Amino acid sequence: MLRRLSLALSVGIVALAPGLAAQNRKAAAPNPILRQYQAVAARIIAAATADSAAWNKLAELTDGFGNRLSGSEALEHAIDWILARMKAEGLDNPHTEPAMVPHWVRGHEKAELLEPRYVELPMLGLGGSVATPRGGIEAPVLVVSSFDELKAHAADARGKIVLFDVPFTGYGQTVAYRGVGAIEAAKAGAVAALIRAVGPFGMRTPHTGSMAPYDSTVRKIAAAAITMEDAAMLHRMQARGQRIVVRLEMEAQTLPDAPSRNVMAEITGREKPDEVVVFGGHIDSWDVGTGAMDDGGGMVIAWEAVRLLKKLGLAPRRTIRAVGWTNEENGGRGGLAYREAHRGELAKHVAAIESDGGTFKFRGFGFSGGDSAYTVVKQVAKLLTPLGADTVFAGGGGADIGPIMGEGVPGMSHNTDGSRYFWFDHTEADNVDKIDPRELAENVAAMAVMAYVLAELPERLPRGGKPVGGRER
Amino acid sequence: MLRRLSLALSVGIVALAPGLAAQNRKAAAPNPILRQYQAVAARIIAAATADSAAWNKLAELTDGFGNRLSGSEALEHAIDWILARMKAEGLDNPHTEPAMVPHWVRGHEKAELLEPRYVELPMLGLGGSVATPRGGIEAPVLVVSSFDELKAHAADARGKIVLFDVPFTGYGQTVAYRGVGAIEAAKAGAVAALIRAVGPFGMRTPHTGSMAPYDSTVRKIAAAAITMEDAAMLHRMQARGQRIVVRLEMEAQTLPDAPSRNVMAEITGREKPDEVVVFGGHIDSWDVGTGAMDDGGGMVIAWEAVRLLKKLGLAPRRTIRAVGWTNEENGGRGGLAYREAHRGELAKHVAAIESDGGTFKFRGFGFSGGDSAYTVVKQVAKLLTPLGADTVFAGGGGADIGPIMGEGVPGMSHNTDGSRYFWFDHTEADNVDKIDPRELAENVAAMAVMAYVLAELPERLPRGGKPVGGRER
Repeated sequence: MLRRLSLALSVGIVALAPGLAAQNRKAAAPNPILRQYQAVAARIIAAATADSAAWNKLAELTDGFGNRLSGSEALEHAIDWILARMKAEGLDNPHTEPAMVPHWVRGHEKAELLEPRYVELPMLGLGGSVATPRGGIEAPVLVVSSFDELKAHAADARGKIVLFDVPFTGYGQTVAYRGVGAIEAAKAGAVAALIRAVGPFGMRTPHTGSMAPYDSTVRKIAAAAITMEDAAMLHRMQARGQRIVVRLEMEAQTLPDAPSRNVMAEITGREKPDEVVVFGGHIDSWDVGTGAMDDGGGMVIAWEAVRLLKKLGLAPRRTIRAVGWTNEENGGRGGLAYREAHRGELAKHVAAIESDGGTFKFRGFGFSGGDSAYTVVKQVAKLLTPLGADTVFAGGGGADIGPIMGEGVPGMSHNTDGSRYFWFDHTEADNVDKIDPRELAENVAAMAVMAYVLAELPERLPRGGKPVGGRER
Repeated sequence: MLRRLSLALSVGIVALAPGLAAQNRKAAAPNPILRQYQAVAARIIAAATADSAAWNKLAELTDGFGNRLSGSEALEHAIDWILARMKAEGLDNPHTEPAMVPHWVRGHEKAELLEPRYVELPMLGLGGSVATPRGGIEAPVLVVSSFDELKAHAADARGKIVLFDVPFTGYGQTVAYRGVGAIEAAKAGAVAALIRAVGPFGMRTPHTGSMAPYDSTVRKIAAAAITMEDAAMLHRMQARGQRIVVRLEMEAQTLPDAPSRNVMAEITGREKPDEVVVFGGHIDSWDVGTGAMDDGGGMVIAWEAVRLLKKLGLAPRRTIRAVGWTNEENGGRGGLAYREAHRGELAKHVAAIESDGGTFKFRGFGFSGGDSAYTVVKQVAKLLTPLGADTVFAGGGGADIGPIMGEGVPGMSHNTDGSRYFWFDHTEADNVDKIDPRELAENVAAMAVMAYVLAELPERLPRGGKPVGGRER
C-alpha cells in the first residue's frame, strides 16, 4: 500500500525545477544541526552503504516465507523469525504485541473468456470479495470506462458481468474502481464486477488489493482484477459489436479474525528511554509475490537502521523503536493495536516514520505535524545531501502510524522513486530482485540518520504550532 | 524470433556517436534517388501515418485468433482471415502456398518447488521438449550459472534437475542455454533441465522458445523455462545450503507434421511483373500471448504497405509481394516452401525484406548482398529521414528469407528499437497493447517507401560486387 506517492512524485518534479532550486538556495537558513551531526551522519551513511546486508536480510525473509497475508501461517512464521533474529542481533527489548486480524482467503479462482473465443484470463480476486455462487457465474460482459458510463448504461448492466476498463492515470483516481466497483455494479443489477488491474504497466499481470467494505443495502457480488491487456481486448471486442461472455469462479471467503502480532525491537535511550522515535513498515503482504517492496523492504529498512546504530555503538539520548506492523493491507489492525498498547506513552513519542512507499531510490521524507517541528526535521534532512535527497515534503505519514498521528504524534513518510512502484504493487512480481541492494542500503542510511538525530537532539521535537501537511497520513 | 537485434543495437549506438555522424555528413555523396522520389516518399509517409489502420488490423488479427503455433487451428483460421481480407482489399493475386510444418503441443505442464517451501513456479516448457515420465519428476535441484560450472560439478548433477540460472547478457549468449541446456544436462545424468527465462526483465514471466534438436546419442530429458525471479531465488537457496526439491510435470509431445500455408498478395508490376520485391513477416507465433510483436506486427507492416500503395494508386514498375510466412518459430518450413515454390523466379527477385525484430520505433534497415546494391539501398533509405532513421546497417536478413538469400537474393531486415523486445518475446505479454499505433504506422511508411522505390527504380537492384553483411540472415 502507499498513499503518498502521487504527492511525493508531483512535489519531486517541482523540486527539480531550476528556478525553485535557486530560490531554495537563496532561502537557506543557518542550520546548526548540520554542523553538529554531519560527522556522525557521514559515519552512518558509510556503514549502511558498505555492504548489502539489508538486501540479504530481505531476501532471506521473502525467500524463506513468501507472501504473508493476514491470517496466514507464513505471516506468523515470518514474525517468529524476525523476533528470533532481533534477539540474536542483541537489540533491546525485542518482543511482539498481539492484534486480531481479518482473515480473508482467496481459495480457487478462475476467469475464462468463452465468447467470442476461448481465452483463460489471468485474474486475482480482490481482497474482501465474496465468492461467486458455487459452480461460478457465466454471463455476458458490459465494458465501461467509468462510473459515469456505467450510470449512462445502467439498463444494460442487469444480469451482466461489468468490467471497468479504466486506464491508470494515478493510484488515487484508478483505485476507486477497485474500492467500490462491485458496489456500483451491483446497484445496476450486475452479477459480478471485474476491473482492469490497477497499474500503469503489466506483463499480463493482475493486481489484487482491498475492496471497500460492501454496502449492506446492495447485493454482495464477487469482484476480481483482470490484466490490462485483457481488459483492453474485451473493450475492443465490445467496440466491434462482438458478444462477450465470461465465466468467473471464485471461492473467496472471510474467516473469523485470526491472531497476529506486531514485532519490534529498540535501542533504548541512554537518557530519556520513555521518549520514543518509532519507525518501520508492515510485515504483512497480499497473498501473491513475496511482498518484498510492499512492504517487507520497508520494515527491513527500519530494522536494519536500528541494527546498524547498535553495531556502531551509537546510543542516542532517546529510544528508537523499529516496528513491523501487521495487517496493513486489509484491516490496519496492527496500527490500531500499537496505539492501544502504547496509548500512555504517546505524549512522549517524538515522531513516527513509516516506509511503505517502495524501496527504490531515496527521494526524501514527508512530514505532517506542527511547523516548528517541520523546521527542525528539514534541518535534519540536510544531513542526507550525500544520498541525493535532502528534502522534507509537506504531508507525510502512513497507514500504520495513522492511528498515533491521530493522537498528536508527528508523522513522517519515507519516500522513494515511485516510477515503477505500481508495476509491481500487489502482484506476483513484487520480489526482492526488483530492489537494488545499493538503493536499499541508502534507504537504511536515510532512515538511520533521521531516527538517530531525532532521538539525539538536546530538545525533543516540539509539538504544536501551525499544522503542516494537514491530516494526511 | 529475431537474430539481428544485438547487431542493430550496437550499430545503432555507433551511429549516434557525434564524431561518426559528422563524418557521415562529410562523406555524403550526391543522391539522385533522394531528389527523384522525395515527393512520392513524402506522400506515402503522410498516408501511412494519417491513421491507426495498421494497429487496428493487428488488433483484429490478434484479438480474433490469439496465438498461432504451427499445427494449431488458430494459425490456419488466421491465415484464412488474412486471405479473405486481402481479397476484399482488392490486392493482386492473393493466395496461399502449402507447407508441412512441425506440430509440437505443450499439453498440461506444472512446476512446483517442494523444498525448502512450497511455491508453484510459473513455467513454460521449451518448444520441442519431450514430456516428463507420466506422473512427473520429483528431484533435487542443482543450480549452475554456466555450462562450465555444470562441467565442474557434473558429478553432482546425476539424478537431479539442473537449473541454468544465467542472467541475460544478450540474446545470442543466453539463448544457448535454451538451445542445448537439456542436452548438456542429460550428458551429466540430469533427469530434467530448467533455464532462467531468456530476457532482461520480467514480472514473474516465463519465456518459451525453441530448443535445438535433441542429440540422438544422449537421453532426451524434458526442458522448461522458469521465471528470472524464481531462478534467482533457487540460486540463493542453494547458496544458503538449503536442499531444493522440484516437481516437474510436462505432457509435451511432437505430433506428425501438419499442413499449413504461406499467405501473400501483391501489387503486380506495371512493366516487369516477373521482377519481385518480396517482404513480410511470419504469421505463426509461440502458443502464449497473441504473437503481436513476434511477429503478427511484422507481417501486418508489409501487408499494410502493399494495401497503402494500392490505395494511393502507386503501381510500380516491378511487383511488390507481401508474405506472411508460416512456421518461423519452430521449423522455418514457410521460408523453405517459398524458396521451392519460387525457385524459378529467384534470379529476378530484386530484394527480400523481413520484419521480425519487433514493431517499436523504426531504427533503419539492415542489408546483406553486394556492395553496389548496398550503395543504392542506402540512397533509398535517405528518403526516410522524416521518420528519424535513414540508415542501412551492414548485415541484414531474417529467418524466413534466409533460404532465398542463400540463392543470391539480396536480403534486408527492418529494424526497430529493441530495448524492450526481449521483455515480451515468447511470453504471455506479447500483445498489441505493447505496440504504439504511431510507431507501427511509421514502420509501415518505412517499408512502403523502401519496397516501392526498389520496385520503381529504372534499373533493377544490381547483384554481385563485394559482399556486404556476410552470410548473416
